[in-house]
This record gives sequence, C-alpha cells and structure tokens, in this order.
Amino acid sequence: MELNKLVDQIKIKKSFLCLGLDSDLSKIPQFLLKESDPIFSFNKALIDALSDLIVAVKINTAFYEVNGVEGWNSLKKTIEYINTKYPELFTIADAKRGDIGNTSDKYAKAFFEKLSFNSVTVSPYMGSDSVEPFLKYKNKYTILLGLTSNKGSNDFQSFPSKEDSLFKQVLKKSKLWKGSNNLMYVVGATKSEHLKEIRLIVPDSFLLIPGVGAQGGSLIDTFKNGANQNIGLLINSSRAIIYAGNGNDFLNKSISVAKTYQIEMDKLIKTL
Amino acid sequence: MELNKLVDQIKIKKSFLCLGLDSDLSKIPQFLLKESDPIFSFNKALIDALSDLIVAVKINTAFYEVNGVEGWNSLKKTIEYINTKYPELFTIADAKRGDIGNTSDKYAKAFFEKLSFNSVTVSPYMGSDSVEPFLKYKNKYTILLGLTSNKGSNDFQSFPSKEDSLFKQVLKKSKLWKGSNNLMYVVGATKSEHLKEIRLIVPDSFLLIPGVGAQGGSLIDTFKNGANQNIGLLINSSRAIIYAGNGNDFLNKSISVAKTYQIEMDKLIKTL
Repeated sequence: MELNKLVDQIKIKKSFLCLGLDSDLSKIPQFLLKESDPIFSFNKALIDALSDLIVAVKINTAFYEVNGVEGWNSLKKTIEYINTKYPELFTIADAKRGDIGNTSDKYAKAFFEKLSFNSVTVSPYMGSDSVEPFLKYKNKYTILLGLTSNKGSNDFQSFPSKEDSLFKQVLKKSKLWKGSNNLMYVVGATKSEHLKEIRLIVPDSFLLIPGVGAQGGSLIDTFKNGANQNIGLLINSSRAIIYAGNGNDFLNKSISVAKTYQIEMDKLIKTL
Repeated sequence: MELNKLVDQIKIKKSFLCLGLDSDLSKIPQFLLKESDPIFSFNKALIDALSDLIVAVKINTAFYEVNGVEGWNSLKKTIEYINTKYPELFTIADAKRGDIGNTSDKYAKAFFEKLSFNSVTVSPYMGSDSVEPFLKYKNKYTILLGLTSNKGSNDFQSFPSKEDSLFKQVLKKSKLWKGSNNLMYVVGATKSEHLKEIRLIVPDSFLLIPGVGAQGGSLIDTFKNGANQNIGLLINSSRAIIYAGNGNDFLNKSISVAKTYQIEMDKLIKTL
C-alpha cells in the first residue's frame, strides 16, 4: 500500500484507529465455539462490523501461534479476508521479529509475500542487517520497536540514561539505514510525555501507538504531542474493543467503543 | 528437560554440537521434493543420521513460517518426531520472540506447551516483563539474546560504549529476574574475544553459540574462553552441516562434517 492511501483513509474515515485482533479462544463469545474456525469467525465479524471506523488491523501473531497449525490457518484466513474484501485497510503483522540477514529475509517473505501484510513489527536489538531485509520491499512498512508501553521497557530502552537512551539511538540510527523511508515506529501511549522528543527525531514517520485506554485523556495527549501534518499516528486498541461484550450482541458493544474513539479522533483531527 | 540431563548427554556423546535446521525448500536435495512434506523428510533424515553426534536441535522458525500453514505443520512434525524418538535431545525454538506480558505468555505457551520445545530464544529489548512469562516454566529454558554474531550487532548491543554496553546490561539485569535460573544466552562465536568478559558476568549459564565456521579455529577459542565446569556451551551449526551435500549421499556428507566437529569437541572436553 502506498502511504498516501493510508493518509487518505484517515481523512475519509476521520479516524486513525487500528483494530488489534488479540483473539483468544478463552475470551471470545462462547456461542462462536460451535463454528468450524471460531477465531476466524470472530475476526471476520469484527472486521465487517468495524471497517468504517478503523483504518488499520493489527494481528498479534502470538495469539495464533498458541493454537499451532490451526492458529496459523486462522491467521492466514483473516489476512486473506481483509486483503480481498477490505484492501483499503492497512494491515500489521504484530510479530516483533528480527534475526540475522538470511533469517530476517525469510520472515520478510513470510509476512510480506506469503501472507501479503502491508507491515510487520520488528525488534531492533540485532541492528541494521537484521532489519534491512524488511526495508527493501517497496510499499511495505517495517514498524520498529522504539519505546514500548510496558513496565519493563525501562530496563533497556532507557539505558544508559534518559538523555542518551537506547530508544533514541534506535530512532536516530535507523533513519540512516537503506530503505528507511519504509520505517514506522512503535511508541507506547503510556509514554506520551516522550512523544515531543520523539517527534524531533522522526518528525515524518508514522507511529503505531498501543496502550491507549478507554479514557480520552491519553488519546488527547498522544495526539497533541505526536500528530504531524499527515496525522502520522495509528492508535491501536485490542482488548477494549474486541472484548467489549461477550454475548450475542458483542458486535454492538465493540462498535460502541470503536465509535467513541472515532468521534474523539474526528474532533482531534479538526484541531489540526 | 532437567539441565543435568543435557550435561550428561554432552559427557556421554563427547559433543556439545547443536544441529540447526534452517531447512529451505530451494536448498535441500532436489530428490526430496517428491516427498509429501520435503522439509520434514529432510529434517527426519538428518536427525536420524546425526543423533549420536549432536546433543541439541535448533529449529529456526523463519524457515517454516515462510511456507505458511504447511511450514508450521513441518515444524510441528519435526519437533514431535524428536520428542518421541529422541527425547534426550535438547530442543530449541529459535524464534527470537518477546512482547508485553500477556502476549509473551501466549508465545511461551505456543513453544513450551503446544509444541513442547525445551527452550526458546527471546529478544530482551522490551525488558523483564516481556521475558518473565517464559521463565516461569520449570525445566524449560529461555535463551536470551546477548551478543549476536552479525555485523549489525554493534549498532545497539555495544551502545553506548564497549565498557558499559547494552549487552552487558542485559546479562547483568536478567540475572536478577525471577526464574533467572532458567536463562541461557545467545553469544556469537565471531565475538569469542568477549567470552571471557561474559563468563565473569554469567559464569554458570549455558551459552548458545552460532557462527562457528567449518574451521576448528574459532571453536578452540570459543571453548577456551567460554567453557565452564559443565562445558556450558552449545555450538550451533546449520548450513555447514545440513547443506554439506545435495545429492543422494547428502547424509554421508552431513555426517562427515558433524563428525569433524564432534572429534574436535571430544579433544577440547578432555582438556578440561
């Protein structure tokens, strides 16, 4: 997907919401368990119900791998369904991959060619040659872990000091890599105070932002500190939307939560 | 697997060799392509041929994911075959996973429960709570990326300086985590000069060492600087062994390369 198509979608839908499909057999509405592939049925129903409110879908590979071969099949069916029926949706394989060159090459092929995702999340720990195999794909995007939203992110991402931290080094160095125009970054919304600093280093890149709560508070802060002229933000919500309900009416509850986000986003976009 | 069983195997087989199954459809002997699952047939043949010379098998998940659902099925059949026929072999899912807690939890379940691997490689970038879900499994091992063998490893692992580098911080901090007795570390053999320093920080841990060439040189250096009272090393070889030949006699060529390693290892073990 060309980046301007994503920007267009954001403007058309007045939304920069990403739907996170952390779909878990033990948490989906139990009436779906009678389906032949309950995870795919759950995902399909959510995508159909929410396609007007979202611009991106993020599939968290762990929740599929845990179901083995069957899980990988649900993942495949989900991405194929999106690519066929909603090619305008920006798709993210949230896989946090990264390895030496010849191995990253296979991961890039797996997600960009075999499964036709638009983007994949990648860990920067192993450095340039572990990321470049992903960057060489035209109109495919590599979403590099920058500053993550979890407590443990302080262990190494802030090393050795706040001023001169690893995550800033990751942002700075990665900008110099071949194909860096295909980079986006993961930045946790729980760190919205860092967003201003991050925008000084990567003013133009899209940021994938997990960890926004049901409250508008951090969404406003995130937007204020992180938006650029293209909006440049994808705000992910997984559990708050997909598990909003668990009865026969679960889709209405999911729509209601997503709609609340979208209305807030529309207001924020208008302030630009 | 209990750790002393791995140590016993090393002593019995006089080997600390790990077979890396980076099995690639375009590189395996072409006569295998007529099999219903060529990758599984290739893996099975290699494991049967080499089981006396090796103590561990490392399955690089990228090479399976690139083949989609079918690839995940080859991976499953391979690990099930090892667990059934060679339960004494230490198995490694070389997956480089790592994510926020509830997601790492699923990865740990996928590799430790669903597929019954003995260990999995994990990236430390996201910190303690991204690794701890793996560490809580008894007799399962988490092989944390320390210092990798690729060129790009300098980008961040040596940040901000040689003396006070990220990879040393990873070793030091991870030792304090709950369940850290289940930790092993990836250390590239191309960095054997660092092994002495690493052994000062983690004297007792097993190290998984990729990047040893067909030459005995770096194997000797690696052993001299890295071995501990339990040997404490797993030397991985992938391409040099599995693609030693590509005709009908490929197994003999693989055996020959593995045997060369094993003889060298036997000599080194005797020097302890």
